[in-house]
Amino acid sequence: MYRSHTCGELRIGNVGEQVTLAGWVQRVRKLGGMTFVDLRDRYGITQLAFDESQNADLAMCAQKLGREYVVQVTGKVTERESKNAKMETGEVEIIVSDLVILSSSETPPFTIEDETDGGDDLRMKYRYLDLRRTAVRRNLELRNSLTFEVRDFLIRRQFIETETPVLINSTPEGARDFVVPSRMNPGQFYALPQSPQLFKQLLMIAGFDRYFQIVKCFRDEDLRADRQPEFTQIDCEMSFVRQEDVVDLFEEMVKTVFRKLKGIDFKEKFIQMPWSDAMRYYGSDKPDLRFGMKFVELTDIAQNRDFAVFNNAKYVGGICAEGCAHYSRKELDGLTDFVKRPQVGAKGLVYVKYNEDGTFKSSVDKFYQTEDLKAWSERFGAKPGDLMLILSGDHIQKTQVALGQLRLEMGDRLGLRKKDEFAPLWVVDFPMFEWDEETSRWKAMHHPFTSPKAEDVDYLESEPGRVRAYAYDMVLNGVELGGGSVRIHDRELQSRVFKAIGLTQEEAEKKFGWLLTAFKYGAPPHAGLAFGLDRFVSLLAGLDSIRDCIAFPKNNSGRDVMINAPSVIETSQLDELYIKVNLPEEK
Amino acid sequence: MYRSHTCGELRIGNVGEQVTLAGWVQRVRKLGGMTFVDLRDRYGITQLAFDESQNADLAMCAQKLGREYVVQVTGKVTERESKNAKMETGEVEIIVSDLVILSSSETPPFTIEDETDGGDDLRMKYRYLDLRRTAVRRNLELRNSLTFEVRDFLIRRQFIETETPVLINSTPEGARDFVVPSRMNPGQFYALPQSPQLFKQLLMIAGFDRYFQIVKCFRDEDLRADRQPEFTQIDCEMSFVRQEDVVDLFEEMVKTVFRKLKGIDFKEKFIQMPWSDAMRYYGSDKPDLRFGMKFVELTDIAQNRDFAVFNNAKYVGGICAEGCAHYSRKELDGLTDFVKRPQVGAKGLVYVKYNEDGTFKSSVDKFYQTEDLKAWSERFGAKPGDLMLILSGDHIQKTQVALGQLRLEMGDRLGLRKKDEFAPLWVVDFPMFEWDEETSRWKAMHHPFTSPKAEDVDYLESEPGRVRAYAYDMVLNGVELGGGSVRIHDRELQSRVFKAIGLTQEEAEKKFGWLLTAFKYGAPPHAGLAFGLDRFVSLLAGLDSIRDCIAFPKNNSGRDVMINAPSVIETSQLDELYIKVNLPEEK
Repeated sequence: MYRSHTCGELRIGNVGEQVTLAGWVQRVRKLGGMTFVDLRDRYGITQLAFDESQNADLAMCAQKLGREYVVQVTGKVTERESKNAKMETGEVEIIVSDLVILSSSETPPFTIEDETDGGDDLRMKYRYLDLRRTAVRRNLELRNSLTFEVRDFLIRRQFIETETPVLINSTPEGARDFVVPSRMNPGQFYALPQSPQLFKQLLMIAGFDRYFQIVKCFRDEDLRADRQPEFTQIDCEMSFVRQEDVVDLFEEMVKTVFRKLKGIDFKEKFIQMPWSDAMRYYGSDKPDLRFGMKFVELTDIAQNRDFAVFNNAKYVGGICAEGCAHYSRKELDGLTDFVKRPQVGAKGLVYVKYNEDGTFKSSVDKFYQTEDLKAWSERFGAKPGDLMLILSGDHIQKTQVALGQLRLEMGDRLGLRKKDEFAPLWVVDFPMFEWDEETSRWKAMHHPFTSPKAEDVDYLESEPGRVRAYAYDMVLNGVELGGGSVRIHDRELQSRVFKAIGLTQEEAEKKFGWLLTAFKYGAPPHAGLAFGLDRFVSLLAGLDSIRDCIAFPKNNSGRDVMINAPSVIETSQLDELYIKVNLPEEK
Repeated sequence: MYRSHTCGELRIGNVGEQVTLAGWVQRVRKLGGMTFVDLRDRYGITQLAFDESQNADLAMCAQKLGREYVVQVTGKVTERESKNAKMETGEVEIIVSDLVILSSSETPPFTIEDETDGGDDLRMKYRYLDLRRTAVRRNLELRNSLTFEVRDFLIRRQFIETETPVLINSTPEGARDFVVPSRMNPGQFYALPQSPQLFKQLLMIAGFDRYFQIVKCFRDEDLRADRQPEFTQIDCEMSFVRQEDVVDLFEEMVKTVFRKLKGIDFKEKFIQMPWSDAMRYYGSDKPDLRFGMKFVELTDIAQNRDFAVFNNAKYVGGICAEGCAHYSRKELDGLTDFVKRPQVGAKGLVYVKYNEDGTFKSSVDKFYQTEDLKAWSERFGAKPGDLMLILSGDHIQKTQVALGQLRLEMGDRLGLRKKDEFAPLWVVDFPMFEWDEETSRWKAMHHPFTSPKAEDVDYLESEPGRVRAYAYDMVLNGVELGGGSVRIHDRELQSRVFKAIGLTQEEAEKKFGWLLTAFKYGAPPHAGLAFGLDRFVSLLAGLDSIRDCIAFPKNNSGRDVMINAPSVIETSQLDELYIKVNLPEEK
């Protein structure tokens, strides 16, 4: 060992001890005849003191130390004259008698501080320096703690962590696969798994009863801030259970994690909100319940006047922003611009101010009387000083989704989406199918192995849109933390679902043949779910991007700018794999 | 829940309780008016009883149950008349009042018993049925327990489990990479990691201090019984440590695993055998120490007579097989054939029988006197009844390796390599370089980031073959369980090592540029190692192949025969990835 203690360990009780520390030079200060060096490692910072009057050569060496030099020092622990209450080691310093430079350092391209001067690109290029920053490293430590607690929880409950293969087959449905040419099987390709879904179902058929895995998954999609080509799932499956068993157990798991890692104790059961309510009241299948602003529908009472926009709409509804009646013209225009953005897609925004003096002022004053606006405000439960924001549209769900985005925007503007508040819920009773405009057919909302609810099975053929699934998402602060479903284990029911999505038995065989074969040999009822680990950590840590909780993330072009991957490979490698690069011709 | 208890849970104390069980039908027996069904799940087997005289319809249903049907039963726990002491639930049975068939099953292609009638190919094709067999599932449970204990051990010692990327760059050295074409970066490829070696070194530079990861690695090699294209490593790295710190800590980890999972307590420190001794006495860098038969060298005393074979040899040495003097001509011929196999490569075998009556009989009687053979036998420490087996050759190490294989063969024949005995050791002081005949240059035996031993550094330029490395392997029962090294953290030393293997600074930059850049910013001294998880589990479980401890392994052609991967993919997928299949022309 190069050290007797870490840099975070020494306390007043160690005074008088001879110790050896090793770490990085955080900074060097000269104060009269004394030179002070802050020595840093993962565990903390300890102050080193060099006294020119005692050992001039050594003090000279210390003054020459650059930032991020790696040094080893030996010396005596001494009580500090001026203590630093902010540091755990702040009561002591080391009077150094011996100094060894283990590695020198060039000046780092940005400062290794919680608030660094490095931009994103630079930090990613020198990610190993970025990871030296305590703020960044803590996210990775939290990630480690989270996975440890999750494993501990699940293994105590008889889950077996089982590795499923990474080199599998390309699946014809879903997102784009990453593929891997096989040298030993010329012209053939493996694919990297988008999830271990089918393997975990096989493990249930294999009688494993309770499976989990914390596992890398891969999707070749165009990337956004919260997407990475490789991401990690906490993937779980159980046999002989119903929806409530899965929901109860994983709710307990999430509560345990919050208690152990954040000291937050959720005493109540999580709300279970039907998908239809989530859409109706929040315009989202992942509502952020840290704040209210539940939708209020006005369709019935807003179509009694000459306002064609409302009269022709299928849906009129809005939210009430408390205390915002003072919003200026400019602020209201800003909100109108917001809802008109193509990503939101509304045609316009109607506002009604319920002024402090009890009067109303709205953007539709010429169509509606005060008593109309008063009636609306009663439905909103609005008080003087509040602002009502109303959208309308032809398509109920699309209008609700737009209103949902406006709600989140208002939540942000009003500071109601606090990073240290957590509002978990389950969204349940998802529709089994959604209509795909492009192909003009129903498609499975989750995947075609999801079980329809018993009470809706009869509508599979007659009214697929009415069939709800035993599918459930855990939502936290407007983010889907995890989701899953009860799976079909009955072959006859499976056939009916395939038929509903327009898949013939032959096509089903071709696409899912080996799983269907497995189902012939005694499949137990089973259900499961998967959590997105990256999102889970970033929510717990209050991060804006999942990148900050990934040690070596990729950028939006799927590049690792530190190692400069991907890259061109040798022709001999391509030849061995029986492939050729086939670039589009330059124009 | 479909059950109140598992099939392994009920005891005599539960008698009288109304319970619900669910599981697979293991077998159905009819004995007079009674029908008995063994119901199986992961936790055990419980006997169900159906009494024709009580409920004829139900008994009829039970008789019709096929093997591997999935059923749910409700009934009363009752004390058995004829108890089965071999089963944990053997004192009770369930008098069933209600039976629901959850899934039927076709007749499985092989029996779901510990000793199955299914061949390897069939078992792999229906792996989910193979995994139902208790003997196979236990290996996976052991794997889960092992990883849990390893994580628990390491996390308690402040190791941070950190995920490193799977989509990285192809490295120009080492084994063949699997590559992944990048859609977003046309003409460029990711590679799957052969190990996270460089990333874990970066994490040390990042100040993570103690890292581990249980991680999938990939090598596109031709496969053998103990190789898989994807395999799992327990990968570890530590900062500010020396070789003895790493060796001590991971020895403790392995001891903890053995104590917790096998009830075996290794009290002594593991032997640390220099690589040169391992070669000299066992002809292997991974000696199996479950048995003796240490090599005895005879070069000096066997070259005093007219036997040209020995006289011209650089090495003459052998092993003593206790109590084998009775070996027949046929057995001795068999051993001669063994050593002459191309994989072993010896030219012949000399034997000396030390007969029970004190006389000697050897294959070189015409060259040597009794006193010669007596002198040899003294050096062997042989007793009457023992058999000495001697090899000789031009090349010392090759002859020792051949003798090592003969030693293992004799160990097998004499039943000395018992699966329930464990003989761990460290092999240390590996040579830094080995001579590569093909390229006529020295190459790194481990990898070029391994640190040479301080006392040998002076020979880096003058005598590279003499330089030993701070490299260490943990060996168990003749298998390399893990291995690692102290890494170079000094740029000047790194340059000298690159030079020794004939790598110019420019080439080094090209191959390892980003790591070398990282080393400029304050690299701590660091060291690490990696264990092969698949091997670790298979040794603990006493398996012949690592396949048996992998849920979904691949065959020797890298195929998953269950899902039939790899496979041909769509041309549209290839086009999107800017590649073409380029098969060799048929002849």
